[in-house]
Amino acid sequence: MQSGGSLGPEPFHEPARMPRGFQCAATNCGLKREGPDLSLFVSDVDAAAAALFTRNQFPGAPVILGRETIRGGTLRAIVVNSKVSNVANGETGIRNARRMAEAAAAEIGTSADRVLVSSTGVIGVSLPIDRIETGIRGMAALLQADPLVGASGIMTTDTHPKAISMSVGDATITWIAKGAGMVEPNMATMLVYIFTDVRLEAATLDSMLRRAAHVSFNMLSVDTDTSTSDTCAILANGLAGTVDHAVFQEALTFGSIAMTQILARDGEGATKLLRIHVEQAASDTDARAIAKSIVNSPLIKTMAFGADPNVGRILMAIGKCFTATIRPDFTSASINGIDVLRDGRRTDFDETRLRTSLQGDPVDIHVSLGVGHASATAFGCDLTDGYIRENAAYYST
Amino acid sequence: MQSGGSLGPEPFHEPARMPRGFQCAATNCGLKREGPDLSLFVSDVDAAAAALFTRNQFPGAPVILGRETIRGGTLRAIVVNSKVSNVANGETGIRNARRMAEAAAAEIGTSADRVLVSSTGVIGVSLPIDRIETGIRGMAALLQADPLVGASGIMTTDTHPKAISMSVGDATITWIAKGAGMVEPNMATMLVYIFTDVRLEAATLDSMLRRAAHVSFNMLSVDTDTSTSDTCAILANGLAGTVDHAVFQEALTFGSIAMTQILARDGEGATKLLRIHVEQAASDTDARAIAKSIVNSPLIKTMAFGADPNVGRILMAIGKCFTATIRPDFTSASINGIDVLRDGRRTDFDETRLRTSLQGDPVDIHVSLGVGHASATAFGCDLTDGYIRENAAYYST
Repeated sequence: MQSGGSLGPEPFHEPARMPRGFQCAATNCGLKREGPDLSLFVSDVDAAAAALFTRNQFPGAPVILGRETIRGGTLRAIVVNSKVSNVANGETGIRNARRMAEAAAAEIGTSADRVLVSSTGVIGVSLPIDRIETGIRGMAALLQADPLVGASGIMTTDTHPKAISMSVGDATITWIAKGAGMVEPNMATMLVYIFTDVRLEAATLDSMLRRAAHVSFNMLSVDTDTSTSDTCAILANGLAGTVDHAVFQEALTFGSIAMTQILARDGEGATKLLRIHVEQAASDTDARAIAKSIVNSPLIKTMAFGADPNVGRILMAIGKCFTATIRPDFTSASINGIDVLRDGRRTDFDETRLRTSLQGDPVDIHVSLGVGHASATAFGCDLTDGYIRENAAYYST
Repeated sequence: MQSGGSLGPEPFHEPARMPRGFQCAATNCGLKREGPDLSLFVSDVDAAAAALFTRNQFPGAPVILGRETIRGGTLRAIVVNSKVSNVANGETGIRNARRMAEAAAAEIGTSADRVLVSSTGVIGVSLPIDRIETGIRGMAALLQADPLVGASGIMTTDTHPKAISMSVGDATITWIAKGAGMVEPNMATMLVYIFTDVRLEAATLDSMLRRAAHVSFNMLSVDTDTSTSDTCAILANGLAGTVDHAVFQEALTFGSIAMTQILARDGEGATKLLRIHVEQAASDTDARAIAKSIVNSPLIKTMAFGADPNVGRILMAIGKCFTATIRPDFTSASINGIDVLRDGRRTDFDETRLRTSLQGDPVDIHVSLGVGHASATAFGCDLTDGYIRENAAYYST
């Protein structure tokens, strides 16, 4: 296995599969005109659990309820609907989120405080809870072992279901995720569920998840817009016994970075993955802020889309981090390995070569600040007319 | 005259004109294939002056020189080229900015320390100083009274030259500006030159300009990208004598807000002006941060473009201001006067009416936070496929 910080192509030749004792199901309960809109993820036995939620100050009802649920540190299931997010619905929203947990708990034979609920989709529309309750009934009979089935029911504007698996000794870790727009997580990404049959305590899971998210989901930005529903949860049911904690942490971080890149690459309208590596920064805060500033700059994103080597925009995006320690004459940058800025000045690079390179996917921008030893990597995507088309009329579709 | 905070349609029925003792000229010196690319603004007599510059940490050479020049508090002229910005050119850049000031000083018979220099356009390309020096020679003979002539030589991706004038008693204030992309000023906007024949001292001008910019140019964002060249300067040559300071401040602020809206409306690819009014905030900082968060949100900007009433995005953009004081149940919002959120919940608004209203220009979003007495207004524009087209291939064109 490569190290957690590696950024090469995703090394997932293993087929995505559920770890032992986990199953999932998806169905259409009438929220979407077609395709699954309701997913259920179940562990055969109680699993230790931890979760991170959005920092948005208008959290959805499922996030408010989820913060309460996760305090127990134990989950049996996750139930998720797509199309409607159950945000800005007041007390009714909370009541409906609870009803959704209760319906799933009844279906699989557990208590509602062991069911995590998520809803993703349009904000400010009432959750059709009757349809969801009806949909949940009978889902236990649909449970099966392919994570892509569960992944398909949680999609909104994603172009494909997202699931990957890794082996850790005799155990497995599986990531199931969605998220294509309104994605700049600051605590977690859109919806990421991680299942493992390793035995770990909830408190350990929590700190491991935070460590992994810090360099993965929390460094992802599709469009700077932090969702009201971001949720990242991990369930460990222990059926494969224990593994070395350091090895598990490394795998968890590595797979989370891989899933972050899959999410970024499928950003709304995206044609390519954008990875911004900042090194020799004065602090971790500076490195992260500058990497985020570059990955979020519309002028950088359109440059990547157009394969147009307007490299001055990199300096602009670094320089607009007003509080970061920056020495213009120490600052250098490269795009896909081609030096474009050295000591604050544009180099005499081969424009044709850079233009050709920019047409590829991914686009990697390395920045060296020359003022310290901190580094960070941010993940995003290009900004295209596809993003505009998708978001100028998302609600109506 | 309306009050400085008014946001109605621009009330400029006065023709744009230079205040007495000011003239301008524009020419093509060979930087652009066609159209003027070099402008000169001249006062017949020494003028008291103040200026604000970008906070970007990679300031262009003209900004570095301009900070030095403005310390004198006196200017006779401003010389500006478009197409090439003279940023990231190291010591040569500074030397070329000085040569540009010297050439203009020689042309009009003053010293180089009384000439402010600006360059705007692509970053990281060498300034063709020989062409500019040749171009400046003879410009004194072209000086004339129409500010739109000077405004035409400073345009980059602007679709029209921008100049407005206001009377203040017997005196005049004239704003000449450009700026369509890479515009999120934090000290000033792209390039804004303000000329007046009022008599005012440099120190007074400086504090008045800061006050005006705080609620106008510093609340403008086209694309969150802070230019390396932002400059906002004011020259007062005194030829019309004194006016009441409060009256002058009010006019300066009012006209600066009007010019801010003209700049926002002509943002790259924009089809409409976006104005975000936040009130009842706990602090000025909160009000400004939330107004900026909304005006910068790609999902709000595409909603305005698509006239699609996805109002939950407003809550999202408020809620992602993590450090602001927000009480979801106290938060209300309206779009063009139609209540869409009340006490943190979506109202039962008439969708057809809102959709029709969103098709108009401007789009006004009012947010009431219900937690204090501070307010702020931010100015921006919608995000369209035109922006993508323009910026995916700006360099090559």
